[in-house]
Amino acid sequence: MADIPATMRRIVSEAKSNGTLEVRIEEVPTPKPEAGQVLVKIEAAPINPSDLALLLSMTDASQAKSVDATTTSLPIPDFAMRMLQGRMDEAMPVGNEGSGTVVAAGDAAGEGLVGKLVAAAGGDMFAEYRCVPVAMCMPMPEGVSARDAASSFVNPMTALSMTKVMKRDGSPALVHTAAASNLGQMLQRICKADGIPLINIVRKPEQRAILKDLGADYALNSEDGNFMADLVEACAETGAIIGFDAVGGGDLSGRIITAMEAAQSRKLTEYSRYGTSVHKQMYVYGRLDLGEVRVPPSVGMAWGVGGFLLTNFLATISPEERMGMAMRIATEIKTTFASDYTGEISLDDVLKPDVMAKYNAKATGTKYLIKP
Amino acid sequence: MADIPATMRRIVSEAKSNGTLEVRIEEVPTPKPEAGQVLVKIEAAPINPSDLALLLSMTDASQAKSVDATTTSLPIPDFAMRMLQGRMDEAMPVGNEGSGTVVAAGDAAGEGLVGKLVAAAGGDMFAEYRCVPVAMCMPMPEGVSARDAASSFVNPMTALSMTKVMKRDGSPALVHTAAASNLGQMLQRICKADGIPLINIVRKPEQRAILKDLGADYALNSEDGNFMADLVEACAETGAIIGFDAVGGGDLSGRIITAMEAAQSRKLTEYSRYGTSVHKQMYVYGRLDLGEVRVPPSVGMAWGVGGFLLTNFLATISPEERMGMAMRIATEIKTTFASDYTGEISLDDVLKPDVMAKYNAKATGTKYLIKP
Repeated sequence: MADIPATMRRIVSEAKSNGTLEVRIEEVPTPKPEAGQVLVKIEAAPINPSDLALLLSMTDASQAKSVDATTTSLPIPDFAMRMLQGRMDEAMPVGNEGSGTVVAAGDAAGEGLVGKLVAAAGGDMFAEYRCVPVAMCMPMPEGVSARDAASSFVNPMTALSMTKVMKRDGSPALVHTAAASNLGQMLQRICKADGIPLINIVRKPEQRAILKDLGADYALNSEDGNFMADLVEACAETGAIIGFDAVGGGDLSGRIITAMEAAQSRKLTEYSRYGTSVHKQMYVYGRLDLGEVRVPPSVGMAWGVGGFLLTNFLATISPEERMGMAMRIATEIKTTFASDYTGEISLDDVLKPDVMAKYNAKATGTKYLIKP
Repeated sequence: MADIPATMRRIVSEAKSNGTLEVRIEEVPTPKPEAGQVLVKIEAAPINPSDLALLLSMTDASQAKSVDATTTSLPIPDFAMRMLQGRMDEAMPVGNEGSGTVVAAGDAAGEGLVGKLVAAAGGDMFAEYRCVPVAMCMPMPEGVSARDAASSFVNPMTALSMTKVMKRDGSPALVHTAAASNLGQMLQRICKADGIPLINIVRKPEQRAILKDLGADYALNSEDGNFMADLVEACAETGAIIGFDAVGGGDLSGRIITAMEAAQSRKLTEYSRYGTSVHKQMYVYGRLDLGEVRVPPSVGMAWGVGGFLLTNFLATISPEERMGMAMRIATEIKTTFASDYTGEISLDDVLKPDVMAKYNAKATGTKYLIKP
């Protein structure tokens, strides 16, 4: 097509062995779709916490300095240098997901998508163009905008996966922390629609209000004095033995398992010094707190805490099941899976220190959208 | 039989709501075997850590006081009072396992066992007699003594289960902590016989020597300065992604998973900010340290820590598989599954404050045998 430029701009992040992280805008040749691929003109891409982990790599955004129009540098803390050894001195493209219009197809497989709005995932989405396998595109229904479709993978797939893990593990209900997040709101809508009891845990009254407005039956504030007692009651009422924790560091997962165990132990007809034999499990899917995950002895013996990574989970289910998830997301992208954004920024804005501080804040309800 | 007395003595432990724990010797009617049961004259029963958890219930043995010839009392710490609510003011019989001679049978099913030495498990073994289902008896070969057979269930079954869990979870090797324990020595002999690479972790040079004497390929001291580097090497050489931790509290499980992840990440061909997708798992089967289990972020995303309780695991395998384990244990009770005892004590000794302090020490290589 005549209007596809020969070169395009994209964001890269490079951790340098001299201790500096560079966030740059690169000018590179616009890729050409191969067989089975389409070229998408990216119109919107959200900045997720997982993107920040790659883009800013544990640096302190308040120390960002503009070097020139296409380069911003940040000092890398010592502890992060060790963890970044595997990517040292390599320019990493950034952006897990995004949406845009298909402007070219590599072969007949993708021709039907040309001119259509699609969502896609796979990295390198903070760019003007991106080649994507046809099989990885999620075509959007009429009336959906690029902004609507930008966050169609990471949060929606994660929230849906939580309900699938719950069923796989035999729990009748779910517990979720940092529950007023975009993802948490999606999960509340899914659970409401699907009749799944959901125990939301937040840290502020206004976060509780967000979930109550969505019709949440349980929205507990972990800072309240009666939090543990209320949580035990909620676990007893719902039978929840599975939860997902976005916080990671600290004792929250341990306290939740303790409450699950206390609820389950009410069913014991005789004393057992090992506690119940019902396995209770927390999945840590985020590390809002980078400290240690701490589990006290009060969890009993039948317990587990572990990491949860969406891509690892998706590899354990069938292609048909993944397709079913994608279909539901595309159909309900403006309702169940709707995302809120604090603001829209350009590729150039991504490099500006003052903007960087804002999109790196990780506060509930602040999420930025890049419009390349 | 004429020589079975009408009454017998046994040990009970009662947590009283007034804040006192009483360890007592009770005189009770000698039970009569029902259909499918045999009566065993208990000749030897080990004091395992799991028995101490019930017998002394987190009290401080140094504060034990003899009340009279059949009662010793200990103050219950505040934190333990909460955890003991489920058994308050109830006399609990003690003793997970033991061995002795079958002296009577409830019916034809058990008659063949009369006069035979058997090992048994199921609680209430710190007693002169115990009725046991025939199906739960492990008959011992000729030449085995009651002392040899006393610890035929808890440690042997746990050690064998570890190798079964390893295979179930797809790991080619095992990591084990507090590895110079009676159980750890059994595990080393099993792994040696079965060709399973085993990474032993201990805290003292003399514990390392015990395992080296048994032919251990890996016996690492976690207090050594190069412990982590050595552990990563051992995990890389063996491919171990599963381990069992008897310590529980502290960061040992977290450090082991960190080492497993570092070893697995050597196989990565490109950088992944989420770490490897290989699931690494630590099973906490003991709580030598009652503090929190602490897991750092360096474990990556594909990790798990959880409790392991023998009875819960045995419920997940077939009766045939359990029978196979019992057969092997009986056959190899004087070799692979041999236990060491520091001393033999009587039921009366169990109540003596000075003896109590000794058998409660939980130091490696100190284990006492009760001869009722």
